[in-house]
Amino acid sequence: MCQLLAMNCNVPTDIVFSFTGFAHRGGRTDTHHDGWGIAFFEGAGVRHFVDHQAAIASPIAELIKRYPIKSTNVIAHIRKATQGQVALENCHPFVRELWGRYWVFAHNGDLKEFAPALDGAFRPVGTTDSELAFCFLLQELRRRFGDTAPDRAALHAALEELVRGIAAYGTFNMMLSDGTALFAHCSTKLCYVVRKYPFASACLSDEDLSVDFSQVTTPNDRVAIIVTEPLTTNETWTHFAPGELKLFVDGALQAASI
Amino acid sequence: MCQLLAMNCNVPTDIVFSFTGFAHRGGRTDTHHDGWGIAFFEGAGVRHFVDHQAAIASPIAELIKRYPIKSTNVIAHIRKATQGQVALENCHPFVRELWGRYWVFAHNGDLKEFAPALDGAFRPVGTTDSELAFCFLLQELRRRFGDTAPDRAALHAALEELVRGIAAYGTFNMMLSDGTALFAHCSTKLCYVVRKYPFASACLSDEDLSVDFSQVTTPNDRVAIIVTEPLTTNETWTHFAPGELKLFVDGALQAASI
Repeated sequence: MCQLLAMNCNVPTDIVFSFTGFAHRGGRTDTHHDGWGIAFFEGAGVRHFVDHQAAIASPIAELIKRYPIKSTNVIAHIRKATQGQVALENCHPFVRELWGRYWVFAHNGDLKEFAPALDGAFRPVGTTDSELAFCFLLQELRRRFGDTAPDRAALHAALEELVRGIAAYGTFNMMLSDGTALFAHCSTKLCYVVRKYPFASACLSDEDLSVDFSQVTTPNDRVAIIVTEPLTTNETWTHFAPGELKLFVDGALQAASI
Repeated sequence: MCQLLAMNCNVPTDIVFSFTGFAHRGGRTDTHHDGWGIAFFEGAGVRHFVDHQAAIASPIAELIKRYPIKSTNVIAHIRKATQGQVALENCHPFVRELWGRYWVFAHNGDLKEFAPALDGAFRPVGTTDSELAFCFLLQELRRRFGDTAPDRAALHAALEELVRGIAAYGTFNMMLSDGTALFAHCSTKLCYVVRKYPFASACLSDEDLSVDFSQVTTPNDRVAIIVTEPLTTNETWTHFAPGELKLFVDGALQAASI
């Protein structure tokens, strides 16, 4: 299984600390060495880095650990190939444009016999079940709402229905963002923490590193981190229930569903 | 005006030497400091780097100069903003998917009163005339050929017509690749060189650096470099005629048009 990491915040924040721990799972503390990727929204734009080297060996991952790119919505993924060969076009996250916005998607899990009809508006470039699911999601959103983006409540309701349909084919832990909100769906394993005032120190599970967030934040900052398995040993992580699609906006959980 | 650089080759080749000279135009030997970007095809996948810092000051440009990413099709751009503010979503090259392939596009020039009707299939995320032209090109290709990619000759013919139509609105030097071929259109300024056996040394115009290609190539390698202004002082660069759309495949010029 792959590993997912996402961040959603109310002010642009760098993900260096959390990514440092996460990247160690790509080949060192875990066996996810079939590539990795990360996408940062910056305004309406996206910085998208993918690499089919293990995250632990990648010069680009090294750059990201050193260069504090600030973003309000980030999605990262470390890949353990289940479907689709090890190739750049199969590395998550995937990026497409819909309604004049970029959408970023990453998936952990395995879909069996998932073969939806595609109308050609969004077609996979690679051979993963994940990119196929992403193309199908965007196609169905466009089919429902036409050329105009719906409000967030309508989008949330549509995604709940669509995601439930896809999850019937297998494990579908996934993260999706349009740069203004982050949706996270749990089939089997996902947890989150919201870091906010008063900030404390946190110690990484995967590396001997800690950070005192009170030194690098202001009292108004709020940062939600969503990940496959807890990244730190001294924060309280809340586990998603199977079937939950959670929506995070400005670093806060907006609604939950079952 | 912005600057464009592209590479098309028959074997995956790194662009470190040419990019090093080119990146110096982003803030040092020239005034193109409103961001930059580069996209490398690797198989069907794309590595896409954009930054709204000047290329000369960008840690990501520094990475690319040090990390030899090998590719058969590369498009790079250094931006001097004419339309659209300095923001990540306005940095070229732009990437979209059509027919299950990624397409990469960059533009140098300025289109006046260019406002084509968009059907919603491809919509700009940023505010540049360039991204609008790219969305229009892909829309029209899809409209002509439906859900199936045409052969290269039909694609070439369609692009000639479409590009001519767009160029009627202003300066439209542009580069477009789907990872298998590179199209380059000249309105005002573009030149190219094909490096092939017997390879010689080349000296950069923008930096005191030379490379002996015979040391880093095999006799079968063939590399076309297409750029706004010659990158080297001791190679023979061929200038495009205004209105020419040239097609490069496997490092060789395929056809020319006026």
